[in-house]
Amino acid sequence: MTSFSRLVRFLAKDGRVYYGDAILPAGVSDLAKTTRARVIKGDIFGQHRVTEQVADVKRVLSPLARNDIRTIRCLGLNYAQHAKEANMAIPTYPVLFFKPVTAATGPTDDIPVPAIAQEAEGLDYECELVIVIGKEAYNIPESQALDYVLGYTVGNDVSHRDWQLKRGAGQWGLGKGFDGWAPFGPGIVSAKLIRDPNALNISTKLNGKIVQNSNTKDMIFNVAKTVSFLSQGTTLLPGDMIFTGTPQGVGMGRRPQLWLKDGDQVEVSLEGVGTCTNKVVFSKPLAKL
Amino acid sequence: MTSFSRLVRFLAKDGRVYYGDAILPAGVSDLAKTTRARVIKGDIFGQHRVTEQVADVKRVLSPLARNDIRTIRCLGLNYAQHAKEANMAIPTYPVLFFKPVTAATGPTDDIPVPAIAQEAEGLDYECELVIVIGKEAYNIPESQALDYVLGYTVGNDVSHRDWQLKRGAGQWGLGKGFDGWAPFGPGIVSAKLIRDPNALNISTKLNGKIVQNSNTKDMIFNVAKTVSFLSQGTTLLPGDMIFTGTPQGVGMGRRPQLWLKDGDQVEVSLEGVGTCTNKVVFSKPLAKL
Repeated sequence: MTSFSRLVRFLAKDGRVYYGDAILPAGVSDLAKTTRARVIKGDIFGQHRVTEQVADVKRVLSPLARNDIRTIRCLGLNYAQHAKEANMAIPTYPVLFFKPVTAATGPTDDIPVPAIAQEAEGLDYECELVIVIGKEAYNIPESQALDYVLGYTVGNDVSHRDWQLKRGAGQWGLGKGFDGWAPFGPGIVSAKLIRDPNALNISTKLNGKIVQNSNTKDMIFNVAKTVSFLSQGTTLLPGDMIFTGTPQGVGMGRRPQLWLKDGDQVEVSLEGVGTCTNKVVFSKPLAKL
Repeated sequence: MTSFSRLVRFLAKDGRVYYGDAILPAGVSDLAKTTRARVIKGDIFGQHRVTEQVADVKRVLSPLARNDIRTIRCLGLNYAQHAKEANMAIPTYPVLFFKPVTAATGPTDDIPVPAIAQEAEGLDYECELVIVIGKEAYNIPESQALDYVLGYTVGNDVSHRDWQLKRGAGQWGLGKGFDGWAPFGPGIVSAKLIRDPNALNISTKLNGKIVQNSNTKDMIFNVAKTVSFLSQGTTLLPGDMIFTGTPQGVGMGRRPQLWLKDGDQVEVSLEGVGTCTNKVVFSKPLAKL
């Protein structure tokens, strides 16, 4: 069990970057609104302690520094209603793909859209519950799986449907792995506070309008099943993240289809965690290589 | 450019683990036969130097420590003859998938086959040229791509065809990502020594018998094209590895098909680098979860 309740990483008003345990005003649960936090000293995955030092938050950052992130796993088609809108069969096993660590970015950062992803339409959002692994897990039974979870956050599995589905020869990594295409945050809520991760409202707003609105109870493979399954024959490491799939309502599944444009604001929210808000920014196309 | 020529990581006779620049006897090019090396001090991706200290090698280890490895990318269907044997179309773009860092293992380690991968037949070998990225690369043109390469090694993209092709709902990560399923080594030969990585013999021996025998000139996307393409919109980091696909001769493509068994010895070799030799070890099935 973690010694912190709500992990945030932030730029403080003193100009330094800290890990901290968020101090939320009464009635506030969105970690994006963290204004003060108790500074954490040490290794958040190992020996550490929440100190009495309170820091003022200037800006909430990606909840994990890049060097603290190991492998980013993602599940596809893990909500029944989403599998239906995608015209895909309910999977027998969790559908696994990966993102590189360079996809990870913070809860207020821009989502950069590089030239290669501007060649065709298809830019889409996916709000997802994200599991952060806290200790090494290998061949863990479902009944013990939640003991290996550091906590939960929310992320956006940003996807380009043309690259994902039409140009990758069936493999999804290319259309989902560009720099900054896995924003997550605003913080990581300890598994000791979220005892049942499969009963949380999850949603996406695009430019202020709700476009996804579901609950993690609709997940086909729940959190315990997912961690247990992914640990079979594979060691999950502290700092591994698992994006657990998105509910219905993605742009691809709408009629007409709804693609993200330059300047769009996307907010993904998870009950008890808060909101990760990112702006879509098309980079200027480069000269042809 | 690197200051070393042939990077090895090894357990020395003094009981310590070092990075070193291999000293090979005249006429020997296989880094697996390294008996002595000049110790390297510092960060192999940054400030470092090859010292005058010579250490005696007891055992050659994985050329990169796990903490020095970032993202492991792999290409599928990147040799024309292999695409043919797999009955797959020649891809328009590189076919990208990933392995977790826990798949990485050394040139003499066992390949563990967990219970979950013993449920069906389909265990296969794939010899591959592996690119190791030496410095951050973003939107790099083909003409400069090789400047970002630290060096080259050989790896085995161990694959379970049943999990890869039949149970992953089309995604390949699951059947290729188990612990130890990306052995590589024995060392990393600097890009300053291998000026043309697309003219190297590459082969696999199974229990002493050649089963794959090709040349990297048959790659569909050569090394420069691969690095350039993968850097579009995506920052490649020092310590990223790219497995560049396998030539024809895999077990799946044979008639009858040839699957790896418990105790099999697999050797993957690359000209100028050497041989990575691993034994297949089936773990005892666990009690049902």
